[in-house]
Amino acid sequence: MSQIDRLKSKLVEFRDKRDWKQFHNPKDISQAISIESAELLEHFLWVSQEASHEVVIKNKEEISDELADIFAYLLSFSDISGIDLEEALLRKLEKNNKKYPVEKSKGHATKYDKL
Amino acid sequence: MSQIDRLKSKLVEFRDKRDWKQFHNPKDISQAISIESAELLEHFLWVSQEASHEVVIKNKEEISDELADIFAYLLSFSDISGIDLEEALLRKLEKNNKKYPVEKSKGHATKYDKL
Amino acid sequence: MSQIDRLKSKLVEFRDKRDWKQFHNPKDISQAISIESAELLEHFLWVSQEASHEVVIKNKEEISDELADIFAYLLSFSDISGIDLEEALLRKLEKNNKKYPVEKSKGHATKYDKL
Amino acid sequence: MSQIDRLKSKLVEFRDKRDWKQFHNPKDISQAISIESAELLEHFLWVSQEASHEVVIKNKEEISDELADIFAYLLSFSDISGIDLEEALLRKLEKNNKKYPVEKSKGHATKYDKL
Repeated sequence: MSQIDRLKSKLVEFRDKRDWKQFHNPKDISQAISIESAELLEHFLWVSQEASHEVVIKNKEEISDELADIFAYLLSFSDISGIDLEEALLRKLEKNNKKYPVEKSKGHATKYDKL
Repeated sequence: MSQIDRLKSKLVEFRDKRDWKQFHNPKDISQAISIESAELLEHFLWVSQEASHEVVIKNKEEISDELADIFAYLLSFSDISGIDLEEALLRKLEKNNKKYPVEKSKGHATKYDKL
Repeated sequence: MSQIDRLKSKLVEFRDKRDWKQFHNPKDISQAISIESAELLEHFLWVSQEASHEVVIKNKEEISDELADIFAYLLSFSDISGIDLEEALLRKLEKNNKKYPVEKSKGHATKYDKL
Repeated sequence: MSQIDRLKSKLVEFRDKRDWKQFHNPKDISQAISIESAELLEHFLWVSQEASHEVVIKNKEEISDELADIFAYLLSFSDISGIDLEEALLRKLEKNNKKYPVEKSKGHATKYDKL
């Protein structure tokens, strides 16, 4: 079993022991991902880009927990939707390689539709 | 190299070829995660929980791309912060096992602070 | 002074008494709006569309506070950007009147680019 | 009729002409607020706090539209929930006056629970 599948199966076990599968549907899991993402974002509110690196160092455990929450719901979404995260990532990376050719994108953050 | 590290190194390669590491800091990557999460959420707007399963079936490629974007930024955050996603997940799962004891949590979605 | 300007001036007074204008810039206020929106959204997690009406009735004060937070940051954004909320709303409504003609939009939630 | 009520009634008219009230429930309107907030936030991605002021100047119409969308859904939420936005704001401001006493909060962005 791959690493990601192994982690996913741990989450599924946690979920099913509590009989929580009934709450898991794409709409609510997407909501949960947005909510957890905002909790991560809150750590960096009113903080400059530079200073945000220090925030991570000072609050490593809390921030690590926020990342874990987002990752957990991503795996839960993968489980109920049957979308494989590695496959999804590799295919998107392929697309982005075309949308953002190195020579056009190098050194600036312009969105592909404005390149 | 673990599966997650292998995927992370592909993203780092993509990023560094474009000289984009200069844009990557915890504040902006968290912003990016929130933005991508909202794009996922948009697929399920005005749709019931039940119907959200069908939305996934009908828009599998687009939704798979949204998941990939969130996962990619999660891996980018892991890279710049040095936080290991598997470690973070397993530790959070341990905590949640204590916050949500099976006997108290079974079958309902009550938050731990109201159990 | 209009009602909205009066509310805005109360917020500006609150902010300036605490010398907080230094933290207010479009990037951070947008972050704050996203964070407060996610706190509102959290009230309706794992809850059906129908049941979400009852959640409002049971948690009126808390939900009212979340709305207030979003509104407050919207007014703060208006203040630092010089964008007038009434003007912005009326102009957007005008645009939406064209994007969503009554005869094409009636009774379904299809996005304008798919009408 | 107050300014806010007048704007709200314009939105209600827009909504009802299209028979869209059926889609409006607290869960979905909260989702919509989060989605629109993320669209606002996207304008300031990879941009420093200082530079975010210039982004507003350069993209005033687009950003004004994003604010309008958030405000519109806030008014829609107010309509279906019966929560008055001015009342909610004034009561929250009262609370924040107590949570953030001027002498303790002046000049720094520490959250009330860490003051």
